Amino acid sequence: MTRPLILVCNDDGINATGIKALVEAVQHLGDVVVVAPDSPQSAKGHSITIAEPLRLHTIINVFGENVKAYSVSGTPVDCVKLAVDKVLHRKPDLLVSGINHGSNASINVIYSGTMSAALEGAIEGIQSVGFSLCDYADDADFTLAKSVATHVCQLILDKKIPQYIALNVNIPKIEPKDHKGIKICRQANSKWTESYIERQDPFRKNYYWMSGKFEIVKMEEDTDEWALAHHFTSIVPVQFDLTAYKHLDDLKQIF
Amino acid sequence: MTRPLILVCNDDGINATGIKALVEAVQHLGDVVVVAPDSPQSAKGHSITIAEPLRLHTIINVFGENVKAYSVSGTPVDCVKLAVDKVLHRKPDLLVSGINHGSNASINVIYSGTMSAALEGAIEGIQSVGFSLCDYADDADFTLAKSVATHVCQLILDKKIPQYIALNVNIPKIEPKDHKGIKICRQANSKWTESYIERQDPFRKNYYWMSGKFEIVKMEEDTDEWALAHHFTSIVPVQFDLTAYKHLDDLKQIF
Repeated sequence: MTRPLILVCNDDGINATGIKALVEAVQHLGDVVVVAPDSPQSAKGHSITIAEPLRLHTIINVFGENVKAYSVSGTPVDCVKLAVDKVLHRKPDLLVSGINHGSNASINVIYSGTMSAALEGAIEGIQSVGFSLCDYADDADFTLAKSVATHVCQLILDKKIPQYIALNVNIPKIEPKDHKGIKICRQANSKWTESYIERQDPFRKNYYWMSGKFEIVKMEEDTDEWALAHHFTSIVPVQFDLTAYKHLDDLKQIF
Repeated sequence: MTRPLILVCNDDGINATGIKALVEAVQHLGDVVVVAPDSPQSAKGHSITIAEPLRLHTIINVFGENVKAYSVSGTPVDCVKLAVDKVLHRKPDLLVSGINHGSNASINVIYSGTMSAALEGAIEGIQSVGFSLCDYADDADFTLAKSVATHVCQLILDKKIPQYIALNVNIPKIEPKDHKGIKICRQANSKWTESYIERQDPFRKNYYWMSGKFEIVKMEEDTDEWALAHHFTSIVPVQFDLTAYKHLDDLKQIF
């Protein structure tokens, strides 16, 4: 029996602690190839590079000698596309993205490079999953997140998930002993309220730096934010058909 | 009665022909303020700028003396966020994005900066719509697209659309006399198959440039691609809850 081919990517870049944790979590499950951005690409959403070329570099001695690794001068979605076409020359059996430093639950999914990489895999028909730990620290403790990643990936490889969705897995920032397990959830209703910080540079020109306050509009029990607040790992199945089906009929009355 | 406040943005940048066409299409409907990227931002998806500051410049004499205009050194979504917080100091009554040079129908919605700007408006509870003309040429003829934009915006202002969705409006590349009208549609099932072009730079280092073939997986009559192929303008209501609801139960069996 051939070992599954596992593609690992992320958005925090190839030198992040989280991607090393993810490689360690899945490397006994198959043949692992890492293709990740050469620089941090947080909040790049589903951005792709079309107006300039991409560079691909071989990375040696970062993930151990059994793991082939490459960095890409582009976005997380670029990494997936270039990996399939020019590195693997085929679709992998599993795409894992992360482990992100910080939550991608609720509305964050839409800005997340980690989840966009996973969603790109889903668009291509690959079994895809993104992992995020609800801790933004560079030196976050990935112990629990790693064991969740191993468990989830093992189940995906054994049982298969439905095609054309990606799993958005968020792991709470808690001690492993306090972990309550996994909950399948829907995306919570939440939003960011921006308040740009306005300052002057040394040349007296104004600049604006994004800041904001995160707010959960409704804390409902079937949502990812509820699960995380109650010490569960949340899994939301994510799709790329954005059609708001329930409003099709209303709109036919207007137009 | 106060005139509605209309925010105009795009992803092709403040100097594109399409955004001038959109301003012309809506300026008699309200007070228009343009906040658009200072450079082309196609395919930036829902990318936001968090690791560096943004610049905001006043633009004079581009859109006529009745239209305030600003350029932003960021993405389309940055433009919406910065406009609401630091330019308008309130939510506009209508957000229009485009007119994009090229289709944003079917799967293209997910990569599109034009539609991400509109979707960001929807997240903020603003009536939002993105317009795209299915013609990539810099000197495309926006005659039909402009008249569609005026008509659609007038109807949105008069009748209101449901909150928390954005409209993805795509206009076919045809003569105005051949236009069959507007169809409310769902997002077609389609995909891009990548084939990166691999070349060597003058220093004999490889580079890769994204190329690809677009394919409609299923041409079904209720989809945007069908409508466009049959000379209709397509309107797809787009949402930001990405939960694949129909798979929640399957996944509860696995995890």
